[in-house]
Amino acid sequence: MSTSGRRPTLAVVGATGAVGRVLVDLLATRADVWGEVRLFASSDAVGTTIPVLGRDEPIRVLEPGCFEGVDVVLFEAPEDVVRIWAPLAVESGAVAVDGSAAFRLNADVPLVVPEINPSATRMRRLGIVAAPRCSTLVLTVALAALHAEFGLRELVVTAALAASGRGRIGIDTLRRQTSEVAGDPTVGSRTGDLRRAVSEQDDDPFEAPLALNLLPWAGDAGEDGWSSEELGLRNETRKILGLPELRISATCLRVPVVSGHSLTVHAVFDNEPDVARIREILDSSAGVIVYDDPAKGEYPTPADVVGSDPTWVGRVRRSLDDPHALELFLCGDNLRKGAALNCVQIAELIAQEPAGSAQHA
Amino acid sequence: MSTSGRRPTLAVVGATGAVGRVLVDLLATRADVWGEVRLFASSDAVGTTIPVLGRDEPIRVLEPGCFEGVDVVLFEAPEDVVRIWAPLAVESGAVAVDGSAAFRLNADVPLVVPEINPSATRMRRLGIVAAPRCSTLVLTVALAALHAEFGLRELVVTAALAASGRGRIGIDTLRRQTSEVAGDPTVGSRTGDLRRAVSEQDDDPFEAPLALNLLPWAGDAGEDGWSSEELGLRNETRKILGLPELRISATCLRVPVVSGHSLTVHAVFDNEPDVARIREILDSSAGVIVYDDPAKGEYPTPADVVGSDPTWVGRVRRSLDDPHALELFLCGDNLRKGAALNCVQIAELIAQEPAGSAQHA
Repeated sequence: MSTSGRRPTLAVVGATGAVGRVLVDLLATRADVWGEVRLFASSDAVGTTIPVLGRDEPIRVLEPGCFEGVDVVLFEAPEDVVRIWAPLAVESGAVAVDGSAAFRLNADVPLVVPEINPSATRMRRLGIVAAPRCSTLVLTVALAALHAEFGLRELVVTAALAASGRGRIGIDTLRRQTSEVAGDPTVGSRTGDLRRAVSEQDDDPFEAPLALNLLPWAGDAGEDGWSSEELGLRNETRKILGLPELRISATCLRVPVVSGHSLTVHAVFDNEPDVARIREILDSSAGVIVYDDPAKGEYPTPADVVGSDPTWVGRVRRSLDDPHALELFLCGDNLRKGAALNCVQIAELIAQEPAGSAQHA
Repeated sequence: MSTSGRRPTLAVVGATGAVGRVLVDLLATRADVWGEVRLFASSDAVGTTIPVLGRDEPIRVLEPGCFEGVDVVLFEAPEDVVRIWAPLAVESGAVAVDGSAAFRLNADVPLVVPEINPSATRMRRLGIVAAPRCSTLVLTVALAALHAEFGLRELVVTAALAASGRGRIGIDTLRRQTSEVAGDPTVGSRTGDLRRAVSEQDDDPFEAPLALNLLPWAGDAGEDGWSSEELGLRNETRKILGLPELRISATCLRVPVVSGHSLTVHAVFDNEPDVARIREILDSSAGVIVYDDPAKGEYPTPADVVGSDPTWVGRVRRSLDDPHALELFLCGDNLRKGAALNCVQIAELIAQEPAGSAQHA
């Protein structure tokens, strides 16, 4: 990217959302890449400011010409907003980095995890680069290097998704319900008690009480009984790992955890995995930490990994019945590396490109 | 069993525990099989009474001769108690029904789910009949009929176990922690916050906070990184289904749910499963209810099934990549059918046997 010597300008769309707030905070911890930073959100936030890189930045609204002079626009916004505004950002000369599902499976849009396929960032024929959903991210960061050595053949995944995967309203709903059920000495022990104990509100993002419960559903209804979260996890994992035929069966649960997605993984490889070697590979993989000695109480939990960047790996063990299969437990903060950090890393890759190196419309 | 015309006498060991209380309450809802019922618990409960079948029964302690005149002894007690007292119950002429793990995998002890293998109850060469752990029960009740038609070849299971699987102390710990974190507007959003927010007590059954969290571990450390819960689920499922070579990979999580175990199941069959036929079979299976229309918000959750007896089945769908694989979500009350009811059903089978029909030492 050429910015004629000046430091590039970054825009963040959705700066007041659950991921957007984490993203703005993260900028302070990253290398000093950006010049101006512009923050955008919905009109109810206009008039407020958010501190970013030492300056109080006003919240702006999206309007024609708003991306003039901007080099990279990070979208942490709903799909319908991104579908309209990402092409407009590209038109005004910026690169769009999309954290939503709007362009993830578009063949002309690279889906990037910087630890895995950083060079794909340059193949942005539409000027747009997409980041995967948080569950895909936690999964692929751990699996990419294992696939390189053992050849991934099949995955059976159960993803226990945190409330914050549904944004601030998800967090607020879980906290409100937790307060409503706390102190009740019987709730959760008798049929339907929990539905009576929690209040329903129109904007609740969950179809059943989440506090002291779990739901075997996340996302919208897709084909043949699959949810959009499950199909997204499958298709994005195939795209990032470059394995369009990979067998994946995923079930997504919503669990009463504030932040931090957890995944149980049954991975079948072409070559028999050796547990000692698996640990070595994981230990030396960027963005991965192995924490695995359950006899000593050492395994990752969402409450312990929240606020950190890596994918944490525990419960590494060989299947007892299939010598080609390995079991893993993965845990990662869905708001940080799972969303905000990955987008920031992609934006940094773009900012640091030599001029003319990208394949851009 | 011959009781010379009188109605048989039942003893319940562990009558004041989480499962024991449910069991005693259940007796009032069952057919009128039993004459005298004697209740046993640890010495701190002596002096109290529990109402059973319209009478206030005193709590007794286990002591030599305590099973005299008893026909069936139901054990809902720790393994070490059962190992000593079940053989003594048999010696004094009773049949022992064991809800613990003490004898489940003993080749001379049948492991019984009355909907699946009721006749195995009679093959009790040691005079002892065992019931499986709650997760095995939820799983096998749903799978037995599917196996009969399609031939089960492999299972990948993630079991999300409720706090009550660890008994009353498990329930109390989750409730206490839930009160401690309720109302805190940030807990669960920052690393380690949750560990500071919940108090630690010496008898906590969980190694990390459970409220607003989940743990990728349940049970004791077994071989090669597997937990006793995972190995038990595997070995008991093989024994009940009569499939000693069945491939099973299980991961057991502990989740902040009071009661109600949830299982995601990836089942591979010899013959390609047809979803419509799968639903038909499940619908007509004893102890199974299909509740499955996620587009309408219809799927089982632990808070909805707690207090009910069946295994609830949702999310029935074919694998997208393997025509032999089926995905299911199962949910069942671990204290009722998962433990207490199954033992009561076994005891009733024994009480109703024609004299001399059992293979008994």
